[in-house]
Formats: sequence, structure tokens, C-alpha cells
Amino acid sequence: MVKVKVFVTLRESVVDPQGTAVQKALHSMGYKEVQETRIGKYMELTLEETSNLDERVKEMCERILANPVIEDFHYEVLEESVSK
Amino acid sequence: MVKVKVFVTLRESVVDPQGTAVQKALHSMGYKEVQETRIGKYMELTLEETSNLDERVKEMCERILANPVIEDFHYEVLEESVSK
Repeated sequence: MVKVKVFVTLRESVVDPQGTAVQKALHSMGYKEVQETRIGKYMELTLEETSNLDERVKEMCERILANPVIEDFHYEVLEESVSK
Repeated sequence: MVKVKVFVTLRESVVDPQGTAVQKALHSMGYKEVQETRIGKYMELTLEETSNLDERVKEMCERILANPVIEDFHYEVLEESVSK
């Protein structure tokens, strides 16, 4: 089995109201040192090993996990031995 | 300025209906190799440097960014030079 960590973030040019709300909350609680807050998604997938894993994961990201119009994504593949 | 990446995930014992929904969507689109899907949050904070940065970020996570009852968190601090 292989574990894949997927990170989806809003593109730099896209306004992030959720991030703004969290930042206001942080400021109102005294964490004035926070200058910017951007919120994204983090997904952990556990997959059966396939020969074209990289290609498949990229496709999943483009088709379902991220919205390529407003979001960027990247992923990390962590190999896991079957015996674990 | 310092950039901090915060990862918030549901605890292993907590049911993740959003993850289940995404997994069903992946299966229905032919990605049958996906065995498990867990969804979390990914946050990027940009902060002014402070001496007790680590302590402050941990506190923010515990108080606002994560719900310690059902969620785990970890973070990575990436130093960034001011001149950049």
C-alpha cells in the first residue's frame, strides 16, 4: 500500500475569505504577529500500488480533488511496505 | 517574516464522512485502487518573527485552528529572510 498526501491551496490571485476570517479571529485573540493566513485542504489517500501511480494521482487531483480554475495542488508519495 | 504550515487532521478514531464521500466519488470515477481517504485542513500562516514563535503557534493551533477533542495537528516552520 502507498500513502499519498495531497495539498490543495487557493491560487495566489484568488481571494480567501475563510483565511481572512481566521486571521481576524487570531488578531482578536491577541496573535497580532500573524500577517497573512491562507486556508487549503490536506488529504491523505491510501492506495494499492499501481505502475502508473503518479499519473493516476495527478489525474484524481485535476478531476476531483482540486478545482484547477482557482486552486493549485501538489502531492507527496510515501511508500509503505505491505508487511507493516 | 516566517512562514508556518499547519496541518490539521481528524483523529484516527473519528469517522470522516467527507473522506468517505470523496472516496465514493473516486471509486465511481474508476479509481478503485483508493482504499482510504481522510480529509484535513492545511493552513499557511505568515508571521512576524517572535522569540517564542513555537510556543505561540502551538497555542494558536490548540485554541483556534484545531479542535483538540477530535483533531490532531502538526506544523512546520519555514524561515524566510526579510530581504526576500
